[in-house]
Amino acid sequence: MASLSHKDLLSVEQLSVDDINLIVDTAESLREVAARPVKKVPTLRGKTVINLFFEPSTRTRSSFELAEKRLSADILNFSPSTSSVSKGETLLDTARNLESMAPDIIVIRHEAAGAPHLLGRECKSSIVNAGDGMHEHPTQALLDALTVRTIKGRLDNLKLAIIGDISHSRVARSDTILFNKMGTQVWVCGPPTLIPWDFDKLGAKITGHIEEAIQDADVIMMLRLQHERQNEAFIPSTREYYNFYGLTRERMRLAKKDTIVMHPGPLNRGVEIDSEVADAGYSVILNQVANGVATRMAVLYLLSGNAGLKLKRHSR
Amino acid sequence: MASLSHKDLLSVEQLSVDDINLIVDTAESLREVAARPVKKVPTLRGKTVINLFFEPSTRTRSSFELAEKRLSADILNFSPSTSSVSKGETLLDTARNLESMAPDIIVIRHEAAGAPHLLGRECKSSIVNAGDGMHEHPTQALLDALTVRTIKGRLDNLKLAIIGDISHSRVARSDTILFNKMGTQVWVCGPPTLIPWDFDKLGAKITGHIEEAIQDADVIMMLRLQHERQNEAFIPSTREYYNFYGLTRERMRLAKKDTIVMHPGPLNRGVEIDSEVADAGYSVILNQVANGVATRMAVLYLLSGNAGLKLKRHSR
Amino acid sequence: MASLSHKDLLSVEQLSVDDINLIVDTAESLREVAARPVKKVPTLRGKTVINLFFEPSTRTRSSFELAEKRLSADILNFSPSTSSVSKGETLLDTARNLESMAPDIIVIRHEAAGAPHLLGRECKSSIVNAGDGMHEHPTQALLDALTVRTIKGRLDNLKLAIIGDISHSRVARSDTILFNKMGTQVWVCGPPTLIPWDFDKLGAKITGHIEEAIQDADVIMMLRLQHERQNEAFIPSTREYYNFYGLTRERMRLAKKDTIVMHPGPLNRGVEIDSEVADAGYSVILNQVANGVATRMAVLYLLSGNAGLKLKRHSR
Repeated sequence: MASLSHKDLLSVEQLSVDDINLIVDTAESLREVAARPVKKVPTLRGKTVINLFFEPSTRTRSSFELAEKRLSADILNFSPSTSSVSKGETLLDTARNLESMAPDIIVIRHEAAGAPHLLGRECKSSIVNAGDGMHEHPTQALLDALTVRTIKGRLDNLKLAIIGDISHSRVARSDTILFNKMGTQVWVCGPPTLIPWDFDKLGAKITGHIEEAIQDADVIMMLRLQHERQNEAFIPSTREYYNFYGLTRERMRLAKKDTIVMHPGPLNRGVEIDSEVADAGYSVILNQVANGVATRMAVLYLLSGNAGLKLKRHSR
Repeated sequence: MASLSHKDLLSVEQLSVDDINLIVDTAESLREVAARPVKKVPTLRGKTVINLFFEPSTRTRSSFELAEKRLSADILNFSPSTSSVSKGETLLDTARNLESMAPDIIVIRHEAAGAPHLLGRECKSSIVNAGDGMHEHPTQALLDALTVRTIKGRLDNLKLAIIGDISHSRVARSDTILFNKMGTQVWVCGPPTLIPWDFDKLGAKITGHIEEAIQDADVIMMLRLQHERQNEAFIPSTREYYNFYGLTRERMRLAKKDTIVMHPGPLNRGVEIDSEVADAGYSVILNQVANGVATRMAVLYLLSGNAGLKLKRHSR
Repeated sequence: MASLSHKDLLSVEQLSVDDINLIVDTAESLREVAARPVKKVPTLRGKTVINLFFEPSTRTRSSFELAEKRLSADILNFSPSTSSVSKGETLLDTARNLESMAPDIIVIRHEAAGAPHLLGRECKSSIVNAGDGMHEHPTQALLDALTVRTIKGRLDNLKLAIIGDISHSRVARSDTILFNKMGTQVWVCGPPTLIPWDFDKLGAKITGHIEEAIQDADVIMMLRLQHERQNEAFIPSTREYYNFYGLTRERMRLAKKDTIVMHPGPLNRGVEIDSEVADAGYSVILNQVANGVATRMAVLYLLSGNAGLKLKRHSR
């Protein structure tokens, strides 16, 4: 099979349809590793991966870390609270220092959009964007693609509804670009204050009415209302938000029989999603988590120069 | 040899006498690994262990981590400060997310009694309780059993005196249940404000006089006075506490010639125990630490479905 | 080749010229590991290394951690914020507890000068000083020696100028002792308030004039002005400091054609060093970082009882 032609994974935007298929195929194939008695392959043995997380993160970092361990890499976790950054070192100096320790891959999360691109230009190591500001979160979009394709069997001719705080969500941006690229019709829905002006340019249809978003949707992706960011100024109250944009059981009755519900987590039960909806059979939220490890394994695997993998047939 | 019939290690209460002997035998056997030039066995290679510590802990987490590494497991440390918990995720959602990453074993410490039991019911992975609130700390009791049995040659027909803050100690509770089960007479001793009403139901004799506890005791277990918890309200001063309940050299003269002294650590020298007593030949406090790694290895080893191990003869 | 005759690496002061050559030779040889496709040797497989860092540190800890991983050791990171230390445990009790877990090597950073020496006396494990207060930082001096020797081909008959806050720098102290021992003429230069009275006893020449320090220097080592420590009281302003002691392009014109510039990092660009100077061809700051991993590998390798290594010929 083909190899990935990029040194770095900086964004979904940089990826071609072939690239996306290559990564999703490889992830689907590597997903089987988690079901083995020995959940480990020696692919990255003796390679060094640095997890450079300037923003706190447990889910994404843990997912990357497990992916790295299951590929047998040597891992260095570098977090800003205990770092030279607090001593005023520039991002580039930090990166050059780490680079001098001869890592093969640097996984970076940073609050500034574009930080991974800066590292991509300056470092010989492969850079993986694990989230940069409000910009992109490409491995999340790729794991979402694997999740949808596993269940729907395809990524084209679908309707995806992304509902919630679009503005502060790099997940919404990366998913919109990826699914649009693959031939899915993407709708974004939320309060006008939480939808950025440029989403129609990314190929999305925009609506303020959740019913319109849900109708005929094959996939509903709910976004987390990020209390911990500055959302208080954008919505009157979480209760009012739930009334207008929460995914309730009533609203799920408007959906198709085989519609699936996704959420990047962590859940605010009763804020953006009804607790029963989150746990229902059509919810594939935990599949997303499992697919996250496989997708990150695939990205690290391909960036290390390995040829892609492909299962004989698709299985959920 | 037999295997452990439990999916989880949630409490000492769930364990039979045979279970306890199985774990202590296996720990005694695995203790030899730490004396080898290569301190490592491949038992858990390719298995994933998640250390899910909601309460800060260095000793217990380090002891588990070393045990896991010496068994060749892949380890993910998940701590609450940087976690989704601070974003309002429920314990169960956190656990289900981690479970989706296909761990084999989750080691959990949580401030709420019963948290490990909740995970035990909801997760396919094996759950190990590393301390839940004021409830239980089963691996501590098991390592204490290994320590006593190594020196005394048996666990029955002994007198164990547990002295100090019984109320806030999950160690006291787990040790009382375990040693009582194995045929040791357990005495608990401390200020009336720091002894819970139900310890006689656990099979312990209760006294407020340290001399009565020490007399004829084969094993004296001193508990840490936990400054960092709310004890100020329960005792007049640490100096007064030492006068009434501290293990002094004078009081050790009341003990038998072969009495041993234990302490789960960390020590408050001069608060609950005289500094010379802590360092004396009859103190086995550091043996407890060494036995902790071996005991955790045994628990992880047995929960992974391996048959128990047994040394030909006992050695200290 | 010879082996190291010490159980511990506590200071540069304890090392003979032969010891230093042995470590630098071995580091030079192990430096090649970072250039291999599989950056890993099995030397410390099944050995346990504890990184006991009482002071926050990213660079040094990361450097040690990578060195340990590339030697295949099992690693336990023990940091004070989550430790028993906050519960009032003494350093010695912490060390004895860790020692009971059967580590082979303990790497310690502590704010108190002499802390590693205390552990060296009390522990069977090998102790490595990763920085103790204002006292010593021996692996930094050794990596500096490797860096200089790689480029200059020798360590004797050179002039080394160490410029900046000498008082608060364990790097300055260790480098002065090491380079003086090896036959390099060491000059220290800085504001009179930031030079301790005893540096002439260590064999250094002292000057307040940066021009005198730079003149004929083969190596210029700039020290970080440690904002985060108490330096505000010692200098009028960082701008004034730069005017008198900063390494500017103008001042570099006073240097020899082949003078190299070093800095232990992290850099304060525009405070102690001009940004262009830091990035110039004569700057070997990033070489120092790469040599740091190799030097720490060499120290751990030799303390584990292995005979030294030596390359056939020197290469940069």
